[in-house]
Amino acid sequence: MKVYLAGPDVFLPDAAAIAAAKKRICAAHGLEGVFPTDPREDAAADAADALWYAIYLRNEAHIRACDALIANLTPFRGASADAGTVYELGFMRALRRPVLGYSNAVADFAARTLQALGGAARRNAEGRWTDAEGLALEEFGLTDNLMIDGGIRAAGGVLLRHAVPEAERWSNLEAFEACVRALAAQPA
Amino acid sequence: MKVYLAGPDVFLPDAAAIAAAKKRICAAHGLEGVFPTDPREDAAADAADALWYAIYLRNEAHIRACDALIANLTPFRGASADAGTVYELGFMRALRRPVLGYSNAVADFAARTLQALGGAARRNAEGRWTDAEGLALEEFGLTDNLMIDGGIRAAGGVLLRHAVPEAERWSNLEAFEACVRALAAQPA
Repeated sequence: MKVYLAGPDVFLPDAAAIAAAKKRICAAHGLEGVFPTDPREDAAADAADALWYAIYLRNEAHIRACDALIANLTPFRGASADAGTVYELGFMRALRRPVLGYSNAVADFAARTLQALGGAARRNAEGRWTDAEGLALEEFGLTDNLMIDGGIRAAGGVLLRHAVPEAERWSNLEAFEACVRALAAQPA
Repeated sequence: MKVYLAGPDVFLPDAAAIAAAKKRICAAHGLEGVFPTDPREDAAADAADALWYAIYLRNEAHIRACDALIANLTPFRGASADAGTVYELGFMRALRRPVLGYSNAVADFAARTLQALGGAARRNAEGRWTDAEGLALEEFGLTDNLMIDGGIRAAGGVLLRHAVPEAERWSNLEAFEACVRALAAQPA
């Protein structure tokens, strides 16, 4: 089973080392990990395409060719996960294939959003939190926007929140390995 | 043609008014707008499901039943678009249906990310921007993460950035209407 390894890990200075570590963990559980930056000869980019679009086409081709996806949903520069990772999660869910996720942060989405908004949040007349522009916060106790938690639940996958020291936020793979173990144990 | 109206508009205090305005614009161009909060009787939620999961299942059922998607990608509490919207965009692209998007902000993603990071960004040894944890920024001049711009391009859709006064960020529908017009003009 080929597993697409979605996450902002691609932005890390040691992305190649994280990719190798994730692939080793997959292999130990009988799965094949596919990292976004892995080469792919059948992607549709031609020589005239911009680099960014060639990357897009390669990633999309990888996802369509994989059997499942594990997303690193650790909050990225704000309360939510990395936008590219979230796009890929929705993409794979639409194909009705298994999607799983983990976050190396345990606070729920509302708590993280309130923190990101600083003092700018307020309660409206119904007692619900809004931001300074009056847009409501989701207060469901979830890991992220309900589409993320919901997509994983609808797919029968697992979504893990794991407490790690702040300095290990991008390197700790314990929750990732728990996802791999859960995926490997799913009936085919 | 049924068009799913993705966006953080659902969080607005006047969401019902925005939904009605967007549907009127769609109808004026011969399209049927479907707002996420529209009721849907065939969604799979049962009485025991939590409210948030019933919302998820309804939204997913709406997307699968629509022929195209127009996403409000205006930056939401950070440099990127709303996570739920991004999930839905990837979802519809996976189904190979038309996806279009607009943002009522014109600065590119790198500029907005630098602004969101405040003074915490730095240049690495290669002269590329990273955040304080060393994770790279995308510097492609795009509207958002390359998966977003790329998915819309791959689908043949349009992605518009539109300058509006800050106070009109969530109410101005000029770029939305331009997307509707572009979608209505696409060959069937």
